[in-house]
Amino acid sequence: MIVVMQEDATDSQIKHVSHLIRELGLREHIIKGTERTVIAALGDDRAKNKENIEHAPGVEKVMPVLAKYKMASREVKKERTVIPLGGTLGAVVGGKKNCIIAGPCSVESRDQLLQCAQEVKEAGATALRGGAFKPRTSPYDFQGLGEAGLKILAEAREKTGLAIVTEVMAVDQVSLVNQYADVLQVGARNMQNYNLLMAVGDQKKPVLLKRGLSATLEEFLLAAEYIISRGNSNVILCERGIRTFETYCRNTLPLAIVPEIHRISHLPIIIDPSQGTGHAHLVPDMCKAAIAAGADGLIIETHDDPEHALTDGAQSITPKTLQEIMPTMKRIAVAVDREI
Amino acid sequence: MIVVMQEDATDSQIKHVSHLIRELGLREHIIKGTERTVIAALGDDRAKNKENIEHAPGVEKVMPVLAKYKMASREVKKERTVIPLGGTLGAVVGGKKNCIIAGPCSVESRDQLLQCAQEVKEAGATALRGGAFKPRTSPYDFQGLGEAGLKILAEAREKTGLAIVTEVMAVDQVSLVNQYADVLQVGARNMQNYNLLMAVGDQKKPVLLKRGLSATLEEFLLAAEYIISRGNSNVILCERGIRTFETYCRNTLPLAIVPEIHRISHLPIIIDPSQGTGHAHLVPDMCKAAIAAGADGLIIETHDDPEHALTDGAQSITPKTLQEIMPTMKRIAVAVDREI
Amino acid sequence: MIVVMQEDATDSQIKHVSHLIRELGLREHIIKGTERTVIAALGDDRAKNKENIEHAPGVEKVMPVLAKYKMASREVKKERTVIPLGGTLGAVVGGKKNCIIAGPCSVESRDQLLQCAQEVKEAGATALRGGAFKPRTSPYDFQGLGEAGLKILAEAREKTGLAIVTEVMAVDQVSLVNQYADVLQVGARNMQNYNLLMAVGDQKKPVLLKRGLSATLEEFLLAAEYIISRGNSNVILCERGIRTFETYCRNTLPLAIVPEIHRISHLPIIIDPSQGTGHAHLVPDMCKAAIAAGADGLIIETHDDPEHALTDGAQSITPKTLQEIMPTMKRIAVAVDREI
Amino acid sequence: MIVVMQEDATDSQIKHVSHLIRELGLREHIIKGTERTVIAALGDDRAKNKENIEHAPGVEKVMPVLAKYKMASREVKKERTVIPLGGTLGAVVGGKKNCIIAGPCSVESRDQLLQCAQEVKEAGATALRGGAFKPRTSPYDFQGLGEAGLKILAEAREKTGLAIVTEVMAVDQVSLVNQYADVLQVGARNMQNYNLLMAVGDQKKPVLLKRGLSATLEEFLLAAEYIISRGNSNVILCERGIRTFETYCRNTLPLAIVPEIHRISHLPIIIDPSQGTGHAHLVPDMCKAAIAAGADGLIIETHDDPEHALTDGAQSITPKTLQEIMPTMKRIAVAVDREI
Repeated sequence: MIVVMQEDATDSQIKHVSHLIRELGLREHIIKGTERTVIAALGDDRAKNKENIEHAPGVEKVMPVLAKYKMASREVKKERTVIPLGGTLGAVVGGKKNCIIAGPCSVESRDQLLQCAQEVKEAGATALRGGAFKPRTSPYDFQGLGEAGLKILAEAREKTGLAIVTEVMAVDQVSLVNQYADVLQVGARNMQNYNLLMAVGDQKKPVLLKRGLSATLEEFLLAAEYIISRGNSNVILCERGIRTFETYCRNTLPLAIVPEIHRISHLPIIIDPSQGTGHAHLVPDMCKAAIAAGADGLIIETHDDPEHALTDGAQSITPKTLQEIMPTMKRIAVAVDREI
Repeated sequence: MIVVMQEDATDSQIKHVSHLIRELGLREHIIKGTERTVIAALGDDRAKNKENIEHAPGVEKVMPVLAKYKMASREVKKERTVIPLGGTLGAVVGGKKNCIIAGPCSVESRDQLLQCAQEVKEAGATALRGGAFKPRTSPYDFQGLGEAGLKILAEAREKTGLAIVTEVMAVDQVSLVNQYADVLQVGARNMQNYNLLMAVGDQKKPVLLKRGLSATLEEFLLAAEYIISRGNSNVILCERGIRTFETYCRNTLPLAIVPEIHRISHLPIIIDPSQGTGHAHLVPDMCKAAIAAGADGLIIETHDDPEHALTDGAQSITPKTLQEIMPTMKRIAVAVDREI
Repeated sequence: MIVVMQEDATDSQIKHVSHLIRELGLREHIIKGTERTVIAALGDDRAKNKENIEHAPGVEKVMPVLAKYKMASREVKKERTVIPLGGTLGAVVGGKKNCIIAGPCSVESRDQLLQCAQEVKEAGATALRGGAFKPRTSPYDFQGLGEAGLKILAEAREKTGLAIVTEVMAVDQVSLVNQYADVLQVGARNMQNYNLLMAVGDQKKPVLLKRGLSATLEEFLLAAEYIISRGNSNVILCERGIRTFETYCRNTLPLAIVPEIHRISHLPIIIDPSQGTGHAHLVPDMCKAAIAAGADGLIIETHDDPEHALTDGAQSITPKTLQEIMPTMKRIAVAVDREI
Repeated sequence: MIVVMQEDATDSQIKHVSHLIRELGLREHIIKGTERTVIAALGDDRAKNKENIEHAPGVEKVMPVLAKYKMASREVKKERTVIPLGGTLGAVVGGKKNCIIAGPCSVESRDQLLQCAQEVKEAGATALRGGAFKPRTSPYDFQGLGEAGLKILAEAREKTGLAIVTEVMAVDQVSLVNQYADVLQVGARNMQNYNLLMAVGDQKKPVLLKRGLSATLEEFLLAAEYIISRGNSNVILCERGIRTFETYCRNTLPLAIVPEIHRISHLPIIIDPSQGTGHAHLVPDMCKAAIAAGADGLIIETHDDPEHALTDGAQSITPKTLQEIMPTMKRIAVAVDREI
C-alpha cells in the first residue's frame, strides 16, 4: 500500500504512520516529494487492515497496490482454467470451444423441460439451464419446483446428454442440488452470501458464479476466492449485467469485462445476455457481441412460450430464435479464433 | 398494469393482449388514444407474471401501476410502526424518540466491548451494535468471534441495559443469535438472501434490515415483505448508502429515502452514516443531517482505537466524538419535533 | 400520459386532475380499477407540462406513454438514415458498410497527423478523426491547436481522401470548423449544450453527436431532435461509454444500445471503444463486439506513439494494432451481414 | 504519481518508465517491494500527461497522488471564501449566515415574479432565483423569456432588495446577463462547457456553479478552477443531485459532499434540494438535512401555483411551504452554530 500524507503532515505524524505499518508486519519506505510525503509499505498486505491507517492524523489517503484476491488471479496461474461441465456432449468451458448453456429460467413441468432440452440441444447447446429453486424479488412469486424440478433436470440429462446447470440458494440445499446437477449456480443476489460460497467450495462440482448487480471486479474475484480457498477451483465467472441509471434495459451489460478478466484472472468468463439486458429483443445481438468480445460461453434463457413463462418471460428467447442466430454465432466464433 | 401498444399495433394484436390479460385473471380496458392504444388491466396484479406481456406482438411496453409490496406499505396500515428493541433503557424505534444504536463493527474482545458499551451508553445510546458473525469481502479477513462474541454482547446488555443488535448471516445461525440478541440484523449483502429473510421472519425478535447496495425501494420493501409475510412485522429499515460513481465516499448516502419511506411505508427507517460514507470524518455531519431529515434513528460504528480496529476502522468514530456531537443532535431532534 | 391516483383519492381530486388535463388541451379518460383509479390523458402530450400534475392532491404518480422525441424516432421515418461523410473514399454511415473512423485524439503536429492519416487509411479507415479544439477537464491541460489544427486536417483529406471528423466546442467555432471539416462532432460534455446543438443544426454538414456520460436514451435522442428540428437531419449517434460504479474501465460501454437505437430511431449509431473503455488493452475486443452487435461504425483513437500523446494516450491503440484487428473485424462484419 | 509495475516487470521496463518520468520533468524513485516494484514520480505532475505511462510495457497501473485542481483547494487558501451576493439585504454565502436563495424555476411573467419575490423575501430569503434563459431537455419545451425576463428580475431586485441569481447558457449571453444579474449561474449540463466557464471567469460577478449529474468532485473543482484561473475567485459550488439507479427521486442528493468540500476546498457549497430530489414532497426535509449537514446555503424552487408552472412544477414548493419550514431551519442552523 501507499500512504499519502497531507501537505502539512508533521514528522511525528509520519513516524506514527511508520509505526502503524510496522505493527502490521510490513516495512515502511518514506519518500519526501516536493509536494507530499508518501510512505510505501513493503510486504504482502492483502490480508492486513490497512484502511485503518486512513484514521491516523496527517494521512490524506491510503492507496492499495495489490488486489486482495490471489488464487483467482493470473499471478498464481498463467494458463487458463478449462472446466469440463459433465453430460455426454463434451461440454467444456474455458478452452477453445465456446460453451452454449440454454434453457428455461425455471423448470415448470416435465413436458416443458424435456421439450426445451431437446430443442436447445438441436440448436447447438451442450448444457441445459433451469431453476428448481428460484430466488424471487417478491414473496408472492413462483418459487420453483424444488427437488421435483431437480429430478426432471436429471431426466433431461439422461435423455439428451446435456450437462445440467441449476441454482443453489442456501447452504442446506447444496448437497441435494449436488446429487442431481452437474454445475451449481450461485446467483447474483448471493454473490456475497459467504456461507453459501464456502458450502459450494466444499463440494467438487463446478460452480457458476454470477456477478452481483453492483459488485466490483475485486469483489467478484474475492467471491471466487472464497470458493477456491475451500478447495474447489472450478469456478466459472458469469457476467449478467450491472445496475446503472439506464432504463431501456433492466441491466447494463458491460462486455469489456471479458478482456479484463482474461487479463487478470485464469478463470473462464461467460455472459448471460438474458439477465444482462432484460428484454428478449436485445438478446440475439448481445449473444453475438459476447462471442466477438472473446467470452468463453453464453448462458441464455429460452422458453417455448415466453408469454406464459412462470418466470422471466420478458427476457426469454424461443429455441427457434436460438437456432436462427446460431450460424451467425458460429461464424463470429471462427472469426475470433474460437469455435462453437 | 398499463400495456402501451406500438403505434401500428393491429386489432388482432390488441385482442391477443386482451386475451393474455384475462388469462391472468384480470380484466382489460382498451383506450384508443390519438397516438397510441393503451390497455389497462383491472384487478390486483401484484403477484401476476405481467412482464411476459411485453413479449406479445405489437406491445411497446408494460407499465406497472401497483407496487408489488403490500404488507410493508402504508395502504394496509396508516399509523407508523413502533418497535421496542429490548434492554432496560427503553430503546424504541419509530416513535417520537430517535433511537441511537452505537458500538464497534466487530466484537473483538470482552474488554473492548464492555468498555465501548459503557461509553456509548454514557454518550446517550440506548442500543449496542457489534458483529459476532462478520460478512467479509475477502476470505482472508477477520470473520468474527462467533458464539463467544454473542456471549460478550449478552454480558454487555446485563451490565449496561443496552439492547443488543447483531448480524445474522445464515439460516443456521438464526436460532443461536436469537438466544443472545435483542435485534437480528440482516446485512446489505444478504438483503435478497430469501431463505435468510424467511428464517428471521419465522422468529419473533425485531429485524434490522439493511438496504442492499443497489436495491431499489421496491426491492427493499419486498425484502421486508418476505419477513412480514412469515409473521414478523417488526422490521426496521436501515439505509446504509448505495453504490454510485462517487469516489470520495465508499457509498453515497441518499437521505431523501427518509421522507419517501415515511410516505409509502409504515415501517421505521434508520440511517447508518458509517457504512453510508465509509470515512469517519464524514460521519458526524451525516448523523446531524439524518436526524434533521426525520430519520427514526441512527446506527453508528464507534471504536475506542480505530487505528487498531479489526474491521471498519476507517469509518468508525470514537465514543468521545459521539459524545461531542450528541448535544447538537439533540437540538436538531427538538427542532424537527423529535427527541433523543 | 397515465395519471395514477392514490388509493384513497376522492372524486373531487379526480375531477381536479381531469380539469388539469383539459387545460393542457388533452382529453381525460377515467378508469376505476379495483385497486386504483387511473386517468389516461388522450392526445399528443409530448410538449406538455405534464409532470406538474404530480403536484395535484390525490395523485400518486404520472407515467408518460409517449417518448418526447419525434423526428428522431422510427415512427416518423421507417427506413434507416444513410449519411455520406465526405472525402473521396466513399465514407458512409448507416448503410450496409460499416464505417471506420480512426485517428489521434488531438492534432499535435502536421507530421504526426499526416503520417497517422496515411496509416489508418492503409488499415482500412475511410474517415479521419482528430481534435483541433479539445475540451479538457483541467484548465492546465493541452487545449488543441485551433485553426492551425483544422488546416492540417484539411491537408490530410487532400492527401488521403479520408473524410474529416473533428469536434466543435462552442457556437462561435461552428462556422470556422465547418470550413475545414466534413463532419462536426459534438462531444459528450456538450450533449446538452443546447445553443451549440442549435448552431450545428443550422448548418448542413453531418453531426456526430456523442452521448453524455449519464444521458438516458430519451435525453440522447432529444439532443438529436434539437439538431434535426433546426433542419439538419444528418445526425450520427455515438455511444462513448457511460459513468457507472465500475473502476477497471474509465467508462462502461453498453453495447445493447445498438439494437435498441435501431428499434426506436432511424439514425445510425456508431461506437467509440476508446472513450468507451479508457484503456487501450480493452479496445480491440470492444471493436469486434461492437461490429457483432450491429453497430454502424466505429470511431477509434489511434496514435503512433501513445506514450507521448498529448491527450488520451492511455486509450489510444497504434495504427499497427488497428491493422492487425481489421481482418477479424471484416470477418465479423460479414458474419452479421455487413461489410467493412 | 505512483507507477505500479506488473509482478514480472523486467529491469529494462523499469528503466523505460524511469525515462518516461524524466521526460515529464519529474524525478523517479524506485521501490522494490516483496510483491511489486513501484516507482514514485517526484515533482508537481498536476499538468503532466501521466496517464500515458499506463501504456508502457510492464506497467500495471498509474495512481495519482495529487488532485489536479490547485486554486480551488484548501492547500492554497486555508480560510473559507466568503462571497457577498449583492442586493440590499446583505446576502452573503460562505460566512456564518446560511444564505437562502428562492424563487421560481423560470421567470414566466412580471406579476408572477414580483409576487413570488415578495413572498420569498417575507419567508426569509435574501436572494431570488429565476431563469430567463432555460436549458430544456426537449426543443419543444418553454425556453424562457430571454432579456425580457432579465429586466423583470432587475425590477424585482429594485422592489425587494433581493440579490438576483440567474442562469447563463452561452458565451454570447454573458455580458447581457451580467448587466442585470448579481450572480451568474452555470447549470449542471454546462459544468464542462469550458468556453462558458472561461467567459464567466472573465467577468467579475460571483458564479454559482452547479455540479454535473455525474461529475466527480475532482471534475467539479476543476470546473471551478477554470473560472478561478481566469481571475474570478467568487465561485459558489452547488450540489443539485447526481444520477444513480434510484427511481423514487429524479436525482440522488448526496449531502456528504458538504463536509468533504469543506475539507478539501475553501469555496462555499450550497444545496439545491429541488433539482436534488425532483419531487416537492421531498424538498422540505432535504432543506433541513442540508442545513444540518453544514451547507452554506440553499437554492430552492418556489412557485405560487406549481400545477401551472411552465417549468419544473413537480419539484417546486410554494412560498407558503417555505415560510412554514423556515422556523425549523432556523433552529437547526443555530444547533450547528450557524444562523439564517
